[in-house]
Amino acid sequence: MEYNVIIIGAGVAGMTTAIYLKRAGISCCIIEEKAPGGQLNYISTIENYPGNNKISGTDLAYNIYNQVNELDIPFLFEQVKEIKKEKEKNIIITEKREINAKYIIIATGRSPKKLNALKEENFLGKGVSYCAICDGPLYKDKEVIVVGAGNSAIKESLFLSNICSKVTILVRKDEFRGRDNIEELRNKKNIIIKYNSEIKKFAGKENLEKVILKSNEEITCNACFIFIGYDPATEKFLNLNITNQEGYIKTDEYCRTNIKNIFAIGDVREKEVNQIITAMNDGVVAATTIMNNQILL
Amino acid sequence: MEYNVIIIGAGVAGMTTAIYLKRAGISCCIIEEKAPGGQLNYISTIENYPGNNKISGTDLAYNIYNQVNELDIPFLFEQVKEIKKEKEKNIIITEKREINAKYIIIATGRSPKKLNALKEENFLGKGVSYCAICDGPLYKDKEVIVVGAGNSAIKESLFLSNICSKVTILVRKDEFRGRDNIEELRNKKNIIIKYNSEIKKFAGKENLEKVILKSNEEITCNACFIFIGYDPATEKFLNLNITNQEGYIKTDEYCRTNIKNIFAIGDVREKEVNQIITAMNDGVVAATTIMNNQILL
Repeated sequence: MEYNVIIIGAGVAGMTTAIYLKRAGISCCIIEEKAPGGQLNYISTIENYPGNNKISGTDLAYNIYNQVNELDIPFLFEQVKEIKKEKEKNIIITEKREINAKYIIIATGRSPKKLNALKEENFLGKGVSYCAICDGPLYKDKEVIVVGAGNSAIKESLFLSNICSKVTILVRKDEFRGRDNIEELRNKKNIIIKYNSEIKKFAGKENLEKVILKSNEEITCNACFIFIGYDPATEKFLNLNITNQEGYIKTDEYCRTNIKNIFAIGDVREKEVNQIITAMNDGVVAATTIMNNQILL
Repeated sequence: MEYNVIIIGAGVAGMTTAIYLKRAGISCCIIEEKAPGGQLNYISTIENYPGNNKISGTDLAYNIYNQVNELDIPFLFEQVKEIKKEKEKNIIITEKREINAKYIIIATGRSPKKLNALKEENFLGKGVSYCAICDGPLYKDKEVIVVGAGNSAIKESLFLSNICSKVTILVRKDEFRGRDNIEELRNKKNIIIKYNSEIKKFAGKENLEKVILKSNEEITCNACFIFIGYDPATEKFLNLNITNQEGYIKTDEYCRTNIKNIFAIGDVREKEVNQIITAMNDGVVAATTIMNNQILL
């Protein structure tokens, strides 16, 4: 099996880059072991994807997957084991076969770390969220909880405090790990900080209504935002030495890694803003970079 | 009148940034003198906007405008005359009023230069195109014409030659102005170069069917791609000294110009890839940059 480009991962970044490549006449295939759409599948309502007032994550994922299918882009539902680099050739080894490709685009994304509290999965998209910019506005003038102690938890709490009526921050230890903007946090009248606090269980009928702490204290809330970090899906590519300390793949502005003809796009890439549009943007940038190389063949 | 952020221009970049800002609780307004959607309004079929197999430019523009309206983002249909910088304040002067804003985002876009041949406007979106990546695949295995002599005309011709059955390049003078990849161009069997050739008139019933040259020679074709440059809409901002030689606004990776709190996003910005997604990406990046500043207020 041989393609010009193999894309690993069928989130929005991977599917967008496939659409661009295939339309340009460049042969490509997508390898994915789960459902297409990646993190979209855990979002109930998206309000910030331009052109759609409100759309569910699964609907948007389905629509893009449909577009990929209409273009006859091969979709292999199998697991990638490893990328092997051989001189001018890149080889992908899956559970079923070896595939040669001139270019490889890694688009495996990242997953938010879970608290592993009881019923956490049940309220995904129904009150439990890992993105304040995306979901915070859905809880305008409502009471929310933030879990975390790092700089991102602090920043997102300040962000939410401008939208929500009350923000309760649960810190596991007796101090923040992050150091930025703590003074601003303390000065916000609608922010309450609770130290030595961990969630045992999420509860509610349809949507999240309260959390129960390990101390058995109950806190009512409409949403709980969890910012305890992410796991970039790069464990299979560690042999390539293209990741940073946190496991994200380092690239230049064209999404090229430091290995020739291997690209990384979307949330798996070391970057600052992780939104649907910015992931798609990486897909367009990588595809046009490859197109510019390929037109000379 | 006073807003936290004023966005000049209601193309996809401007409207996307407004959606992000308003949802974050940051007051903003959009000023636009024409129909919302910018260049979208000249595209008949979009096939590479993820989540939509096929959508007309005007439909996508309408959908995004609708989303802006649902968020109650003020939309001023008037003409911007000038931006005035006063110490900590940015002032926008329109034909009707002065508006103060902490931040200004310039999203005025660019227009492709027209040939000004007869009936050119009539076939916009019906065969006359200014974007090969967007529209080339609509003419797979068909015969097309390219007009231009610069590097972008050469590059786009090579791109189209991989998709279309025949590409005829019309060069106004007796040589190319661009210097890159001319050898590759000559080696392509399905590329024909015609020097000293200018289009007098476009013709066809519904869609473009042929062009008539000034020499009265007729060439049948399904599409004509015109790459003779763009006019960035920055003539009103020349006093700010933020543009490059070609008139595009220079920014850093956060879309910040070298004037404090003035941003530029989308096609008006000096950048390499100009697609719907990349323009929206600028909008998200500028909005999140402002959000990160604003959460501390």
